[in-house]
Amino acid sequence: MRSEPAAVTVLGLGSMGTALAGALLKGGHATTVWNRSPHKAKPLAERGATVAATPEEAVAASPLLIACVLDYAALHTVLDPVADSLAGKTLVNLTSGSPEQAAEAAAWARAHGAHYLDGAIMTTPPGVGSPEMMFLYSGERTVFDTHRPVLASLGDPLHLGTDPGLASLYDAALLGLMWAAMTGWLHGTALVGAEGTPATAFTPVAIRWLSAVTGFLTTYAPQVDAGHYPGDDATVDVQIAAIDHLIHAAAARGVDNALPELLKATMERTRAAGHGSSSYASVIETLRKAAGNR
Amino acid sequence: MRSEPAAVTVLGLGSMGTALAGALLKGGHATTVWNRSPHKAKPLAERGATVAATPEEAVAASPLLIACVLDYAALHTVLDPVADSLAGKTLVNLTSGSPEQAAEAAAWARAHGAHYLDGAIMTTPPGVGSPEMMFLYSGERTVFDTHRPVLASLGDPLHLGTDPGLASLYDAALLGLMWAAMTGWLHGTALVGAEGTPATAFTPVAIRWLSAVTGFLTTYAPQVDAGHYPGDDATVDVQIAAIDHLIHAAAARGVDNALPELLKATMERTRAAGHGSSSYASVIETLRKAAGNR
Ligand SMILES: NC(=O)c1ccc[n+]([C@@H]2O[C@H](COP(=O)([O-])OP(=O)(O)OC[C@H]3O[C@@H](n4cnc5c(N)ncnc54)[C@H](OP(=O)(O)O)[C@@H]3O)[C@@H](O)[C@H]2O)c1
Ligand SMILES: NC(=O)c1ccc[n+]([C@@H]2O[C@H](COP(=O)([O-])OP(=O)(O)OC[C@H]3O[C@@H](n4cnc5c(N)ncnc54)[C@H](OP(=O)(O)O)[C@@H]3O)[C@@H](O)[C@H]2O)c1
Repeated sequence: MRSEPAAVTVLGLGSMGTALAGALLKGGHATTVWNRSPHKAKPLAERGATVAATPEEAVAASPLLIACVLDYAALHTVLDPVADSLAGKTLVNLTSGSPEQAAEAAAWARAHGAHYLDGAIMTTPPGVGSPEMMFLYSGERTVFDTHRPVLASLGDPLHLGTDPGLASLYDAALLGLMWAAMTGWLHGTALVGAEGTPATAFTPVAIRWLSAVTGFLTTYAPQVDAGHYPGDDATVDVQIAAIDHLIHAAAARGVDNALPELLKATMERTRAAGHGSSSYASVIETLRKAAGNR
Repeated sequence: MRSEPAAVTVLGLGSMGTALAGALLKGGHATTVWNRSPHKAKPLAERGATVAATPEEAVAASPLLIACVLDYAALHTVLDPVADSLAGKTLVNLTSGSPEQAAEAAAWARAHGAHYLDGAIMTTPPGVGSPEMMFLYSGERTVFDTHRPVLASLGDPLHLGTDPGLASLYDAALLGLMWAAMTGWLHGTALVGAEGTPATAFTPVAIRWLSAVTGFLTTYAPQVDAGHYPGDDATVDVQIAAIDHLIHAAAARGVDNALPELLKATMERTRAAGHGSSSYASVIETLRKAAGNR
């Protein structure tokens, strides 16, 4: 389904802003672009983008403004001087930041008569424009619904809720999952690599295994919501016994054990809290008790 | 493709051994079973299994023996007394253990004239029999090829190499990935849960994201093998900047930060080693330098 062409402005043409503007052009939208360093606009101009000379011109050009700069400080450097021309516009902010910064930017936009959506891009620049890639949004639902067809040119737009901080909160949570998974994968890769298995041989097996692991997450999610963790499939006790094989195998091969040791300690705290025969989902009870709150 | 029915014996009918025997019966194989506590054989007998009264009987019944007991101590308790009747048999050992235990069992089997394959089951009992689920094997290739059709009744059989320790080594590496990913997921679930998002709402998004993450692993695996980590998509510096959002958001919501703090420290050690502008794959260099080796 192709969206009606709409006029849209992209503020910020770093590697991500450039990818966003490229996908909008590909989607047939009348795209105006602006960047602090003007030379970055040139390849987009050659593909049909209108280049605005100033943020004023960029804001005036379209009802929909998509901002993607380094951080919130840069966002305010660009937009504060033109705040009075934002009335009636919609600002979709894809700059990464904290939920608190998103809430503040939403209030700031509202004070200047603008609609605001906060967003998080769950891919790297080469993934922009692919319908499998998730773009997370939070803020007014009607604003999202109005601009959904344009946003769909960037990736699959998901609306998480009206609280503008939600996209950033999910972003942080998902990146945390990514770092944990990538580090676990690299640890395993180092372990089998010590016996001569190349990463390119181990990784397809690891990826198939991750798809089995997503089955466990699907089983455990309702357990988390219910606060009840039946250990029918595998208990915390069983996992604690098994992680020692990993720790010994890694130690014997000179692979750093900080990650498995931390995971084991977390499981042991979970068992000490009475969850030895619960499923791994019960570990969330331990994670909810931060050091400061214990 | 249905395999030729073959005679096979299962030693050990805990939750996993019972699932294995059930899948073999379903695959049409003449299945003999034995368990220390005999009552566990009853439901299998009703489904057509032959129940052996002793390990001797069980070993005599079939050329192919599949063992799945608690640990290697249990394995030796069962098989040492019947070692002399193993000559010419093939022992497929699906009991979990270390690569060293597997190597030892392989030597022990060889000394008694038996063929040996070590294996690791990458699923829980309900997944046994499904062709998507991976069963990892290591040991003589010809032994694997001979029994592949029977092993295919249990799941998808993958042969990793002739070193008998490889299945256990992969098992440890993959479980490490699982614990890291599950803990990262629970951490994210706790974070968004603090703002009222149910685990069942967050998890489908997390699962889609994991499939994007597998794309990163596929990109990074050849970088690991080459020892060269171009940071075109996202650098270690960028990840370090981003993880602070996670740490602050979690701290503000009383969620334990031990895991993200460890991940950040690992990234910082990687940066200190000169990989600030490398991709995340360069973290493997840090993991290969265990505390004892630094
Ligand atoms: N790259 C990714 O994979 C990815 C993924 C998800 C989210 N993001 C987020 O997207 C945002 C942009 O990332 P990027 O990869 O495009 O970064 P980048 O290539 O470093 O680009 C940074 C952009 O911010 C602009 N900028 C920086 N400081 C400024 C200031 N004081 N005033 C005006 N403009 C300023 C830069 O302008 P100049 O060209 O003039 O320097 C440039 O357009 C970041 O928040 C990032 O976290 C990136
Ligand atoms: N369950 C899983 O999800 C899973 C997944 C992958 C791998 N595995 C591995 O599969 C193996 C079996 O696991 P399981 O889940 O079936 O465990 P389980 O339900 O606890 O069963 C343990 C089995 O070992 C036998 N056993 C224990 N000590 C023995 C001894 N001294 N002599 C003889 N038999 C003894 C038990 O016999 P009795 O019935 O007489 O006690 C029973 O058959 C373990 O190595 C486990 O790590 C399990």
